[in-house]
Amino acid sequence: MERVPLKILEKAQDSIIILRLKDGTEYKGRLKEIDSYMNMIIEDATEFMDGAAVAKYSEIFIRGNNLLFIKPDASEIF
Amino acid sequence: MERVPLKILEKAQDSIIILRLKDGTEYKGRLKEIDSYMNMIIEDATEFMDGAAVAKYSEIFIRGNNLLFIKPDASEIF
Amino acid sequence: MERVPLKILEKAQDSIIILRLKDGTEYKGRLKEIDSYMNMIIEDATEFMDGAAVAKYSEIFIRGNNLLFIKPDASEIF
Amino acid sequence: MERVPLKILEKAQDSIIILRLKDGTEYKGRLKEIDSYMNMIIEDATEFMDGAAVAKYSEIFIRGNNLLFIKPDASEIF
Amino acid sequence: MERVPLKILEKAQDSIIILRLKDGTEYKGRLKEIDSYMNMIIEDATEFMDGAAVAKYSEIFIRGNNLLFIKPDASEIF
Amino acid sequence: MERVPLKILEKAQDSIIILRLKDGTEYKGRLKEIDSYMNMIIEDATEFMDGAAVAKYSEIFIRGNNLLFIKPDASEIF
Amino acid sequence: MERVPLKILEKAQDSIIILRLKDGTEYKGRLKEIDSYMNMIIEDATEFMDGAAVAKYSEIFIRGNNLLFIKPDASEIF
Repeated sequence: MERVPLKILEKAQDSIIILRLKDGTEYKGRLKEIDSYMNMIIEDATEFMDGAAVAKYSEIFIRGNNLLFIKPDASEIF
Repeated sequence: MERVPLKILEKAQDSIIILRLKDGTEYKGRLKEIDSYMNMIIEDATEFMDGAAVAKYSEIFIRGNNLLFIKPDASEIF
Repeated sequence: MERVPLKILEKAQDSIIILRLKDGTEYKGRLKEIDSYMNMIIEDATEFMDGAAVAKYSEIFIRGNNLLFIKPDASEIF
Repeated sequence: MERVPLKILEKAQDSIIILRLKDGTEYKGRLKEIDSYMNMIIEDATEFMDGAAVAKYSEIFIRGNNLLFIKPDASEIF
Repeated sequence: MERVPLKILEKAQDSIIILRLKDGTEYKGRLKEIDSYMNMIIEDATEFMDGAAVAKYSEIFIRGNNLLFIKPDASEIF
Repeated sequence: MERVPLKILEKAQDSIIILRLKDGTEYKGRLKEIDSYMNMIIEDATEFMDGAAVAKYSEIFIRGNNLLFIKPDASEIF
Repeated sequence: MERVPLKILEKAQDSIIILRLKDGTEYKGRLKEIDSYMNMIIEDATEFMDGAAVAKYSEIFIRGNNLLFIKPDASEIF
């Protein structure tokens, strides 16, 4: 059991992703960096709460241990 | 005590599964990859909240530490 | 202090058990596999919420870190 | 700092204990086995919620990481 | 950075302490044993909820990972 | 997978950041120090709850394990 | 990335600090000892809930894993 799922995330670098945190907040933006703890740098990130855009960040660091899921290719959504 | 339960999950790759996260959200889709942390890539995933389909994802990465259970062969359900 | 309690669970393989998760959900079914993390495969599992049967699964993988307790021999109950 | 508190629990084997879990549920019964993770096998266990007996189990495995406290010698109580 | 704070707790052995758990429950009693995980044996313990004494235990084992604080010398209080 | 996301945070030292903790509290201030656990020293920090400034601290130590996200360059915001 | 933030806390020994725990309780007092787990001994501690002083302790041990933040130099506040 290699850590293949993480490799797929690595390949998603520089593409648009959507991620959801445990508190329900979602972020859509460009995945610039991700490490094995799933810490991420997201560029041009939009923050969503209850489906509504509430903030925009040119660059944001998100701590991986709060992550629920990542949708790797989200360029067509929204 | 080998980690036999995880081996059964490995065998479920490429089949349709249902999984429930700690927050009650459920996903049904094709299990493409799973690692020993139970991180998963699910293809053609439908997201369910309170039993209702709320979203569809062509591909989604789910962090294993939020997992409650996996039903390995769910092809006959829904 | 050996891990004797887990050995008793190993002996429960192939018998009917009841388990309760931290969220209060209970499962009754045949314990097919269990590892040292208390990950389990349960066959012919019935899911109970607030005492009522809500779902049946021919086979289910349950992540051990959500486990509250296991009743090893539950063949006489329900 | 040896792990003296756990040694006292070991000595409590085969005696009647009361334990409380983080969710407030209590169990009274005979401590058959305990390991260094505080996983326990309790025999002739009675489950209490809000002070009322709600279930009886001839044998039950309780995962130690949910434990709040153990009263080692509870033979005189109830 | 030695673990000096724990050494102060060791010196509190055989004296009366008050401790609070994460759920707000407090215990006052004689600290008989404590280990590096802050597991404790308390003798002649009184349990307090919302400031009111609700139970007494001749001896109780308390799991350290639920601990919020310990007041080492509480002989003059209450 | 190097820990590149953390390196970007290191470069943010001495610049103004915004961080959000798991409980929703936010802090804006100058990032003086950060370690690999994401423990931080923030100078001239303003604390925000529900979007309103509620306190100011000339210097504050924030424990990294409660961190949700960091916006590295926040000099233009507020 | 050395653990510089913790070093700053070490330098705060014997000065007045304010700390907040995850449950919102705050303590103001003299930091006597701190270790790398952020376990602390606070002297002449005042406990605050919802901003109001509710208790005083000549000496208190606080478990570090509940810590939200520490304001190192709080001698001028309150």
